[in-house]
Amino acid sequence: MAQLVVTPLYSAHRFGSGDELLPHLLTALSDASITVEDFDLLVVTSKVVSKVEGQVVSFNGTEEARESLIESQSRRILRRRGGLRITETHHGFVNANAGIDFSNTEPETAVLLPVDADKSARALRAQFSHATGKTVGIVITDTFGRTWRNGVADVALGAAGIQVIDDLRGQSDDSGRLLEVTQVAIADEIASAANLVVAKDGSTPFVHIRGLATKHFGSSSVAEHIIRPANEDLFR
Amino acid sequence: MAQLVVTPLYSAHRFGSGDELLPHLLTALSDASITVEDFDLLVVTSKVVSKVEGQVVSFNGTEEARESLIESQSRRILRRRGGLRITETHHGFVNANAGIDFSNTEPETAVLLPVDADKSARALRAQFSHATGKTVGIVITDTFGRTWRNGVADVALGAAGIQVIDDLRGQSDDSGRLLEVTQVAIADEIASAANLVVAKDGSTPFVHIRGLATKHFGSSSVAEHIIRPANEDLFR
Repeated sequence: MAQLVVTPLYSAHRFGSGDELLPHLLTALSDASITVEDFDLLVVTSKVVSKVEGQVVSFNGTEEARESLIESQSRRILRRRGGLRITETHHGFVNANAGIDFSNTEPETAVLLPVDADKSARALRAQFSHATGKTVGIVITDTFGRTWRNGVADVALGAAGIQVIDDLRGQSDDSGRLLEVTQVAIADEIASAANLVVAKDGSTPFVHIRGLATKHFGSSSVAEHIIRPANEDLFR
Repeated sequence: MAQLVVTPLYSAHRFGSGDELLPHLLTALSDASITVEDFDLLVVTSKVVSKVEGQVVSFNGTEEARESLIESQSRRILRRRGGLRITETHHGFVNANAGIDFSNTEPETAVLLPVDADKSARALRAQFSHATGKTVGIVITDTFGRTWRNGVADVALGAAGIQVIDDLRGQSDDSGRLLEVTQVAIADEIASAANLVVAKDGSTPFVHIRGLATKHFGSSSVAEHIIRPANEDLFR
């Protein structure tokens, strides 16, 4: 049976610029008594990726500094309401306030998104494989708002070793007709599943997932396959 | 440890108008050797809810019939591109083609969304409690496209027994500052997690989830708490 098991991994470490993720991930897995197998998934919250990559800037808390920081990280601003900006980041993500984190950060700092989360995921995957001999999928997650529905949900910011989109185009339903729903955003669903067990105080930077169907493993990237180009989008 | 276990539940039954969901859900649980406990979640794909509630209409396959059906289920059409309509349904959901399913249906038919999926969820929850004495959460799911990101993901269409939104407003981060991300769409993340194990041929209409934190249980509804009113939305 294709049962999925989603386990939060605690780490007491406070990540900072120049830290390596791998040793802390391995410690967290060991603390949870998990021996990783091929086709396991490791989910990493983007906050710690940003921190170890030095994507931390000083921030004095003023409205001007906040706005200037958001603009510096944005290709364009799609909407403004009060202090909220809906931005298209330089990566092409559409999110609130360019994905900049002004909470759960060291005092007088803000945390920017990783420069290239797919690349960060690929690097961690390679290090993990080198250290353990295991072939896993990595998903780096962030929390995004959505149109039309209240509340935020976690999505994939970067990925390695998985097919971020499950492409069912050309497949038939059980009556032989072509399936209508043809591209499933697996990486985003993984991110959302992981977020259900993540502690909101930042103490679980990693999540381990076992049981995803092996057909979802492979090579693709969030930047290339999940970000929808602006000219294909009906709401930009 | 707050581990989440997500199990697909197979059913060979082909659901039709007037069927009861409960006996088939109980059989599917028994076939999977699962004894339900308090605070388990049961996820139901909206397709089978629609079918047992008779939300099936005749459909001759023509473009005219398709368009007329979509319009009949919509409060308004937000965008048109080719055969695609982005609709606001009479429920207030914004989705593609009013959520009407033209595939995985009996020949010459289309399947509409349930009239009131929260109500359907509440009814199933009450029946389940009556039959088993267990207090569970129910989430009825459907597959929606998103703005700005390729691929579809499952979201909650209706729910019972859970807090669909985890409201963290007023809570502080580990440095004592107010959290920025304050309302998490738990019900949608549950739907996405469940979809990772659902078979695309329709053979797993139910999913069992164990391990969601008990604080997410309670009383709320998708219609009231997740659907964002049009006047609060920046993209309508």
